[in-house]
Amino acid sequence: MNGAECLMRALADAGMTLCFTNPGTTEIHLVAALEQEPRIRAVLALFEGVCSGAADGFARMTGRPAATLLHLGPGLSNAMANLHNARRAQSPIVNLVGDHPWPHRKNDPPLASDIATMAKPVSGWVRETTDARRLPSQGIAALQAAMSPPGQVATLVIPADCAWGASSPYGENIVLPEAAKVSEHAVEKALQLLLNGKPTALIIGGKALLEPGLKAAARIAEKTGAVVMSQTFDARFERGAGLPAVKRLPYFPERARKRLSGYPQVILAGTRSPTAFFGYPDQSTRVLPDECDVHKLAEPFQDATAALEALARSIGASRIEPAVQPVQRPDLPSGPLTIESAGAAVAALLPENAIVSDEAGTSGGHAYLFSAGAPRHDWLCLTGGSIGQGVPLATGAALACPDRKVTCLQGDGGAMYTLQALWTQAREELDVTTVIFSNRKYQILQAELSRLGFKAPGKTTLSTMDLSRPDLDWVKLAQGMGVSAARAEDTDSFVKLFARALQSPGPHLIEARL
Amino acid sequence: MNGAECLMRALADAGMTLCFTNPGTTEIHLVAALEQEPRIRAVLALFEGVCSGAADGFARMTGRPAATLLHLGPGLSNAMANLHNARRAQSPIVNLVGDHPWPHRKNDPPLASDIATMAKPVSGWVRETTDARRLPSQGIAALQAAMSPPGQVATLVIPADCAWGASSPYGENIVLPEAAKVSEHAVEKALQLLLNGKPTALIIGGKALLEPGLKAAARIAEKTGAVVMSQTFDARFERGAGLPAVKRLPYFPERARKRLSGYPQVILAGTRSPTAFFGYPDQSTRVLPDECDVHKLAEPFQDATAALEALARSIGASRIEPAVQPVQRPDLPSGPLTIESAGAAVAALLPENAIVSDEAGTSGGHAYLFSAGAPRHDWLCLTGGSIGQGVPLATGAALACPDRKVTCLQGDGGAMYTLQALWTQAREELDVTTVIFSNRKYQILQAELSRLGFKAPGKTTLSTMDLSRPDLDWVKLAQGMGVSAARAEDTDSFVKLFARALQSPGPHLIEARL
Repeated sequence: MNGAECLMRALADAGMTLCFTNPGTTEIHLVAALEQEPRIRAVLALFEGVCSGAADGFARMTGRPAATLLHLGPGLSNAMANLHNARRAQSPIVNLVGDHPWPHRKNDPPLASDIATMAKPVSGWVRETTDARRLPSQGIAALQAAMSPPGQVATLVIPADCAWGASSPYGENIVLPEAAKVSEHAVEKALQLLLNGKPTALIIGGKALLEPGLKAAARIAEKTGAVVMSQTFDARFERGAGLPAVKRLPYFPERARKRLSGYPQVILAGTRSPTAFFGYPDQSTRVLPDECDVHKLAEPFQDATAALEALARSIGASRIEPAVQPVQRPDLPSGPLTIESAGAAVAALLPENAIVSDEAGTSGGHAYLFSAGAPRHDWLCLTGGSIGQGVPLATGAALACPDRKVTCLQGDGGAMYTLQALWTQAREELDVTTVIFSNRKYQILQAELSRLGFKAPGKTTLSTMDLSRPDLDWVKLAQGMGVSAARAEDTDSFVKLFARALQSPGPHLIEARL
Repeated sequence: MNGAECLMRALADAGMTLCFTNPGTTEIHLVAALEQEPRIRAVLALFEGVCSGAADGFARMTGRPAATLLHLGPGLSNAMANLHNARRAQSPIVNLVGDHPWPHRKNDPPLASDIATMAKPVSGWVRETTDARRLPSQGIAALQAAMSPPGQVATLVIPADCAWGASSPYGENIVLPEAAKVSEHAVEKALQLLLNGKPTALIIGGKALLEPGLKAAARIAEKTGAVVMSQTFDARFERGAGLPAVKRLPYFPERARKRLSGYPQVILAGTRSPTAFFGYPDQSTRVLPDECDVHKLAEPFQDATAALEALARSIGASRIEPAVQPVQRPDLPSGPLTIESAGAAVAALLPENAIVSDEAGTSGGHAYLFSAGAPRHDWLCLTGGSIGQGVPLATGAALACPDRKVTCLQGDGGAMYTLQALWTQAREELDVTTVIFSNRKYQILQAELSRLGFKAPGKTTLSTMDLSRPDLDWVKLAQGMGVSAARAEDTDSFVKLFARALQSPGPHLIEARL
């Protein structure tokens, strides 16, 4: 067996099932090794940003890493923007990046570059293989690193001679890391804060946004009067009817500040201290009150759910049946198509157990608000602010959960970044309905303009935020990649198209023309 | 004036005329500064790989840098694959990358990443601005670095507070660097080799592939019997009727080795020693003969054209009128559409003074061969092997040379990487005709498979090289971005469509269905 074959067998033994790829000559032995390893499915994407975004979606829904198989530095470069988002989502991903064989590196051929340096800003773990015999164990080390709580991007650079050179199967037991336990002291400190009579905000994140964590936090809140919040953009949270409702912190810092004012105590569980998304002239980036006691109950690498459950126990709240969100859907809307009416339609029709990939930016807020009482579903956010995540993320989520309906709420600006993901959806016949909110502009930038003090922006400035010359025809773009598509110009047609898409399997795209 | 305004004024004073951008909140002051500086035109792209590829095309045709204006680490990431190609093309480019204001960096907000580290593998020069007052001089330093011969990518990271903070105009004289002169000793050594009676290959590159260098090399060859060659993939070369013809080294190493065998002496002018593109098991990556005396007449940073002219003088060849390529066009082809017939049609119709952006891969060889005797034109290659260069490069070349016809020969696989460039072509009404060679596969990989020893590749392997499930409809994809498009299923229709596209201004796309 060669290095590539031993690597793929070891990864499959460790539970890896999926590899998103756009390979080249330096990766052919790795591709051929996938041929020998039926436990890992190879999924082709026509641009590497789709690979990394899909691996992120898969990781968010399964808690396990998919691999990406990338073609040298340029392949990694193309994957990097969505790796940045995955890093912020704390998603486990294993990047396998092919490189020139070691003896050829000294020649500095055209495709050569410093891949390891390139990988560092988006990876928590980077190694280069020097020997085919070490490749299987380095593959397992990459997987273990990726799964180190809370999850991270691990990148292994594989020179082609390490893939084709002789190796032998990985022989050790494969032990996967688990989240670290929280100390009793941290729970005790939280307890003291909750009992001292001061108003407390409990900000939860990571896996604590799934049902057990949500319920533990809700129990604590009911017993103590604390308020539970989440960050603005979390990787994945469970919500909808039957689950405790948690409010997100607002995006703009002055609004987040307002929401947090009056809370001299903040307890963090599974998330970092909240901060502004952007900095502005003459405005603080701090969103916590000036005098605020911040207690880290559970760091992101720790088991926040267990910590919340321990805290609930210690406070005598374990048996409380927390209040949950009742079923509450908007009526089917009608009239002109707006972000309000499209959002109401999505919320009115969202099926039980749906997955929502949300990169709708300024257009998505209403769908989010209105769906609070929709049947239980998962909501996945743009975690790192790098647009072009939504459609690939939906692609990976659909591969992770083939029995669930995926809805992608996507702004037109971001959709253009990684539209190639639609092709993979068609090829893999994935059950994804993509709603393109077509407002023909980078609306968020126009909003930021006035906030930055540009009250009368000029022609050049506005032109850099304008997508209307020429118009993008999303129906043609989707059909050009084999995805059935239609345009909604009013709410009635949007409702009809969205309902129909949810009823027919396979990918669909709706251009919601605002 | 703020830092951004002083920066843009300084860059305009230094001759910068163009800025390709997809800005975000952190770049808004830089965009607003472009509003105040009409000498720099802002061109919007819907993906940053278009910005960098277009800046490369502009640089190749003008010898001068355009700017890119990019949104933090993710914006730079998206630009990186084509920056890799630009680095290999030795194209001067100035990247202006926005970042969070310094006081906000410590918060590590979602969009933060280590931009300077990320920039290193694709940049010859990287700096971060720490102070608005230093921004104008750092901008000029970036431009000077970019123009340092032979040309390189320079990246300046600009935290938003350095853009909006108070500054003052750049007050120094702006001196731009020039190519270094070659020593008399290097010319003398070349002279000795040429006169010692042994067969000599003269491999020229960089700016020596423009008319003066080609003519000097041809004079030397005629006088001495040396043979003139170029590397396989050069940034730009002038060719066609009326110019000395230069043969490229073949792509596959065994063929390049064969071409170079019998030349115990190689003189390099403006280029590096040739090497294999990829390494293969049990095959050397060396393409020069084992016993070969390699003399560097001019390093890439030196003035290779002046060196060749000095050598021609010293050898008494200055007055020779070198043989040039006669006008020689194929007849208009007919019959089924093939890479041969499409290539012949392109060669038969290519207009005087055309610019050809060639990323057709395995489909482009015939167009190249058949156009050797077409009217004089420029040929731009995929320099770094990172696919997705062709359409953006054509976009930048068209902006650089608005009075010339640009033809982009593009494989379908690479076209999918940066198809967003078509939108910018439509928006800017650029005179580009894109020919998509649609063979629905990564043909080069299928060729490499058998070379790597995979004689009977399996289903998984072949599926990662297959674009046929589903078919890409390039007519719809182009029309979806506002570019007129049509499909050619046979040679007659290809000829008609290509001729018509050349006669009507503005962008056109032809899907050549092979």
